[in-house]
Amino acid sequence: MNTPVTEPSTNQPSLDMGELSPHAEGPRLIAATSSGDHLALHWVDGSQAHFPLLWLRDHCSCSECRHPLTRERLFVPLEDIDEAPRSTLVEGGLRLQWADGHVSLYDAVWLHQRRPGDDADPNGTLTRLQRPWPEAFAPEHVKYSDFMTTDGERHWLEVLLRDGLVVLDDGPLIDEEVSRIAGRIGPMRATNFGARFDVYSKPNPNNAAYTAIGLALHSDLPNWRQPPDIQLLYCLQNEAEGGESLFADGFAVAERLRVEAPEAFRVLSETPIDFRFQDEEQDIAARAPVIALDDRGRLKEIRFNNWIRDTLRLPLDTIDAWYRAYRQFWLLLHDPRHQIEFALEPGQMVAFDNRRVLHGRRAFDPSTGRRHLQGTYLDIDMIESRLRVLQRRT
Amino acid sequence: MNTPVTEPSTNQPSLDMGELSPHAEGPRLIAATSSGDHLALHWVDGSQAHFPLLWLRDHCSCSECRHPLTRERLFVPLEDIDEAPRSTLVEGGLRLQWADGHVSLYDAVWLHQRRPGDDADPNGTLTRLQRPWPEAFAPEHVKYSDFMTTDGERHWLEVLLRDGLVVLDDGPLIDEEVSRIAGRIGPMRATNFGARFDVYSKPNPNNAAYTAIGLALHSDLPNWRQPPDIQLLYCLQNEAEGGESLFADGFAVAERLRVEAPEAFRVLSETPIDFRFQDEEQDIAARAPVIALDDRGRLKEIRFNNWIRDTLRLPLDTIDAWYRAYRQFWLLLHDPRHQIEFALEPGQMVAFDNRRVLHGRRAFDPSTGRRHLQGTYLDIDMIESRLRVLQRRT
Repeated sequence: MNTPVTEPSTNQPSLDMGELSPHAEGPRLIAATSSGDHLALHWVDGSQAHFPLLWLRDHCSCSECRHPLTRERLFVPLEDIDEAPRSTLVEGGLRLQWADGHVSLYDAVWLHQRRPGDDADPNGTLTRLQRPWPEAFAPEHVKYSDFMTTDGERHWLEVLLRDGLVVLDDGPLIDEEVSRIAGRIGPMRATNFGARFDVYSKPNPNNAAYTAIGLALHSDLPNWRQPPDIQLLYCLQNEAEGGESLFADGFAVAERLRVEAPEAFRVLSETPIDFRFQDEEQDIAARAPVIALDDRGRLKEIRFNNWIRDTLRLPLDTIDAWYRAYRQFWLLLHDPRHQIEFALEPGQMVAFDNRRVLHGRRAFDPSTGRRHLQGTYLDIDMIESRLRVLQRRT
Repeated sequence: MNTPVTEPSTNQPSLDMGELSPHAEGPRLIAATSSGDHLALHWVDGSQAHFPLLWLRDHCSCSECRHPLTRERLFVPLEDIDEAPRSTLVEGGLRLQWADGHVSLYDAVWLHQRRPGDDADPNGTLTRLQRPWPEAFAPEHVKYSDFMTTDGERHWLEVLLRDGLVVLDDGPLIDEEVSRIAGRIGPMRATNFGARFDVYSKPNPNNAAYTAIGLALHSDLPNWRQPPDIQLLYCLQNEAEGGESLFADGFAVAERLRVEAPEAFRVLSETPIDFRFQDEEQDIAARAPVIALDDRGRLKEIRFNNWIRDTLRLPLDTIDAWYRAYRQFWLLLHDPRHQIEFALEPGQMVAFDNRRVLHGRRAFDPSTGRRHLQGTYLDIDMIESRLRVLQRRT
């Protein structure tokens, strides 16, 4: 089918495939053969694959099929492709001329990476990097001055996705530094507590965080349909006695629960409960299980916050079992094997995945000194996006 | 068990149950009898229910068990309750004195509404109100001046949750009015396009919306793990020829697909695909099915945006079926029975549920006049919360 081209074409075919990331290295294409409504491609490394014609037409990146500025797809795959295109191997890839004269170009490596049947999830950065905490887990620290470099920031992002927690050291003691750090990555996720919040002991708190009491491990805002993903907590002052930060890897502990107390795991993952926060201005409620799984049974999210558990509305014969399961998870989370503790120093910032890693703090005595953290939230999409963009530069 | 109280107590029991909403009217409690680790309650209307003791202890709203300012739960249910409390009927409710001397009060109606086994979802505002569009659906309009009253705003919120779309009429032609309207309800949900975006024809667009081309029906930002829920689009100028707004109820059409083309529905709801947006600053990607169902098979979300469909990565033998299913859904959505069309006038604002209702627009000719919309997003949690708060006032 490697027929020379004769028909004219007005579209501007392109090998860039609409991608901003540089194409990776890969094998050269050596043959293209038509077979019914598929095209069979062969690479020099011996790999081969079949591509449906409609798939090929749909992925044309010419200026008619992809908007030349936005790079968005303009082609809509509403028609079957009845006639095989004329295919030609060209420098770097494949050229197809369709029955209507339209010409498409495809990069050989781009095609190789997207062979049908190779169902890797190239965009699933989070899932690929995630690693549960071992016992005696010690969080990784990144220096602020390193974070300000491309490599340092990239490392910080990777650790955050891998461990669900990373500590930044030696940052400046400047009001709103946490907002500037967030701004490098993406827009802050605003909630009923604002886009950026101050954590200190307040006279009229609407939230336990704004008191001086100890806070057992919890996740923030499980009463939202979509709780915030990533929390940044920047320490400006920490002179009060107490107030050490507490963390536990909710995913690692839930996996332990799955093994040690499968019935408790089942109850917590199959029973939606209500979470709710009320103040004069808001009444925000959501129903979801404490442990959320995806359709393959993998951990997706932990919602754990005893303060804003709403009325437990369950059938009578399941209530005691739910409390038992909750207690087992509570005790496992707060077990010293799983709960880590450290005092944040001024100029340190902890970033953690609020849907995976639970956080808390020891009580502090506000009469012994000031404790002041500034916090904000980021969508995890922004963490992954930032990492992909920084990877373009390497 | 209605024994008179003798032990002293330091806690301050309360009948308010930590709720800010006024208690509804309901039947009077007439008897409380102990039965093992449950308490059986009887109301004057003949209803009765069993309450586990630990449940009752967990829901105590005294000042030790609920923070008196934040109203958040302080009690942690880590111990079994081995001994039945002494119960007394009091004006408006029930008084329990526990073995350790702790005293709890419960409002009779509050208990009646929360009888175990009555598994209504009191916080599930959205699901309760949702109603699919009939054929020849005409959107409901609310006047701006009405919206500025409690009843008018409440109606606007209810229509938005019910139909997934509501039009505001006769608003002022003031820059940023859309931000002020959003600010009444909750914080704006910022994305890579900003917290508040302008929709007009731009010289260097990074998004098809910022051109003058026609936009087929789509949902915004399906390439985010959590696409924005509610979109507000406020029209400031619309003098150009064309540019009519298009909408379809994605849920109603998906239900139609489920009946008319069950195989297409199955393919679209069971096949995660990739969505991705790239520009110089961002590379935001997510994998999800076009039609997302909850674990009971009910529609949860539609992700439909042909511009930012990324490479279709599927096993070879499923690709043609996916394109067929996509085409069937596309054609059904754009069918004149389902797609509605109207020109937004200056001072009109359309609000719609971006995870349910698809939107688009006809091409316009920027040489014939200016077309300028301002938009933002809100979390649906904020819509529901605002409705609950306004309901307190009635």
